[in-house]
Amino acid sequence: MSDRSEREAGRSFMPKFDDKGLLSAVVVHHETRDVLMVAFMDVEALNATRETGVAHFHSRSRGKLWKKGESSGNILKVHEILVDCDQDAFVLSCTPAGPTCHTGARSCFYRVLQDDALEPVKT
Amino acid sequence: MSDRSEREAGRSFMPKFDDKGLLSAVVVHHETRDVLMVAFMDVEALNATRETGVAHFHSRSRGKLWKKGESSGNILKVHEILVDCDQDAFVLSCTPAGPTCHTGARSCFYRVLQDDALEPVKT
Repeated sequence: MSDRSEREAGRSFMPKFDDKGLLSAVVVHHETRDVLMVAFMDVEALNATRETGVAHFHSRSRGKLWKKGESSGNILKVHEILVDCDQDAFVLSCTPAGPTCHTGARSCFYRVLQDDALEPVKT
Repeated sequence: MSDRSEREAGRSFMPKFDDKGLLSAVVVHHETRDVLMVAFMDVEALNATRETGVAHFHSRSRGKLWKKGESSGNILKVHEILVDCDQDAFVLSCTPAGPTCHTGARSCFYRVLQDDALEPVKT
């Protein structure tokens, strides 16, 4: 198989990082399935996540490895990593230890766009 | 309020594009809530999505506006756009007209990482 068909149809884990060495990671709640946050992973964050079972990302603003919850304690325990067709995006199905958002919200997605303004999501 | 606190806590829609003019867009199925795909939007894709109610993205590989389903017909009708805390990621809650993945799969996330290999997701 070509690299592309192996990547799309095969069993080989061949994560595809972009020109900055990153891929997309979407965190969903393992039980409610709500989308909790979206971030980026580099190879270091991916390895740390797989080794520890706790979600790690690459902080683009700080330019370094970011263990989610390292200061707040609100870690994300990873149950499953789903991989998309071209292996440049993952869904991490997680159990959060507390609110995922740094604002204290359960999810970072606490607003919905209505016309030209943001409104709180009904929960 | 500062720009940051208005962006995080306010009602103003202030999408935050990165240094390539992109932000992350996660598509979830409006009814099943499965994550269907992850892509990027630039301001052109965001405007086209809001104007038409059909999901548009920015294709990084082709470097241009990408109406999802423009060749396959498998468009995504957008019901809601959720916006995250720092407004650099959206969740699009959509009704798909057909399989979302170009492989014919319902979702691009049809494999799960188990140990070092990918296995089909049970559906």
